[in-house]
Amino acid sequence: MVQQERARVTRDKIMFGAADVIRRVGYAAATLGEIGEAAGVTKGALYFHFASKEEIARALIEEQHSSTRAAAVEIIESGGPAVELMMRLCADLAVRLVDDPIVRAGITLTTDTSTLDTPLQDPYRDWMGTFEELASQAERAGETKTRVKPDALARFIIPAFTGVQLVSETFSERKDLLERVHEMWQVLLAAIVAPDALDDWLAVAESVFTAPQSSTV
Amino acid sequence: MVQQERARVTRDKIMFGAADVIRRVGYAAATLGEIGEAAGVTKGALYFHFASKEEIARALIEEQHSSTRAAAVEIIESGGPAVELMMRLCADLAVRLVDDPIVRAGITLTTDTSTLDTPLQDPYRDWMGTFEELASQAERAGETKTRVKPDALARFIIPAFTGVQLVSETFSERKDLLERVHEMWQVLLAAIVAPDALDDWLAVAESVFTAPQSSTV
Repeated sequence: MVQQERARVTRDKIMFGAADVIRRVGYAAATLGEIGEAAGVTKGALYFHFASKEEIARALIEEQHSSTRAAAVEIIESGGPAVELMMRLCADLAVRLVDDPIVRAGITLTTDTSTLDTPLQDPYRDWMGTFEELASQAERAGETKTRVKPDALARFIIPAFTGVQLVSETFSERKDLLERVHEMWQVLLAAIVAPDALDDWLAVAESVFTAPQSSTV
Repeated sequence: MVQQERARVTRDKIMFGAADVIRRVGYAAATLGEIGEAAGVTKGALYFHFASKEEIARALIEEQHSSTRAAAVEIIESGGPAVELMMRLCADLAVRLVDDPIVRAGITLTTDTSTLDTPLQDPYRDWMGTFEELASQAERAGETKTRVKPDALARFIIPAFTGVQLVSETFSERKDLLERVHEMWQVLLAAIVAPDALDDWLAVAESVFTAPQSSTV
């Protein structure tokens, strides 16, 4: 391994170690010592990559956000009706929130308002932008027939998803998350599609949330 | 003042002091020393009431929950259509989340999953129970006409509200919360009331969220 690769591997080890410690004891109680131990790296190696716990937290949030955004681009580029794409984005993120330690940790750190000195608005803003664009496409394509404007819908879906995953974490460590996000979309579909198209859309939701395909990114 | 009264006043001072410190520096960084200073009480008085920071956090969460639940009972007993009651409960809690330091702190502590060793399910469960009951009433009274079942609606509304207030805290320190909760209900109404009744219900929402009455409790 060349030096850069080695540095990269060490950095990844620290990120996964930190995600593990944060999941077990919470961010507030996590120490750099424990993180180094969980990662299996020396204190020197840890400080070479991160000067503080807050820096690790920011790195986890960034890594979570960039990997989920990359997956989102792949889903959107795969095509399909915009309403279905919105559901698939939610299903994909729900699966990652259960399966991917970095995504789990990154989202927990984003929603814990006590984690960072300045609360993070950009991840929310990126997702709201994506959903507003898809909701506009859905409106233009006649998939939706609703008084709810695309920007208002996006401003609701992203916080609603945030709350659904948070409460699912509290009740079941996110084991029921996919089911809860499916229920969320049963409500949303009733609000945005034409009444005579609701049954068809509920069937689409059923297939999206019953066997969600995690994208390959 | 008799001794019991004095103890009560000191306890309240500590709670408000803690709420203030938590708002400024976050729970993780808050120390008992700072809380005592903000409360204007001696360390001895503080330790007489609370053995640890976690005990203060639990007391804030309990006080927030019992005061908002008492307000909820008052709103429900004032009567009216169940759909309107659900909106008024949300508007009342939104106003308290902006105006009442104990409610602000209590909700922040409830949603910050890193605050306590065991995450709190009971507050969510209480609110879901209340909303399921009201959603059932609304269905029986013919106010709603929807495929969404009362329990599923309640399981979505409470997490959705949780997320909406959290994101509003991140973007505007909850200054836009009432407006965001109003938007949330514009989506929910489109999902649950009959299409030909939607205009009337949107007008009710307008009056509930434009001039919300904080209950007297």
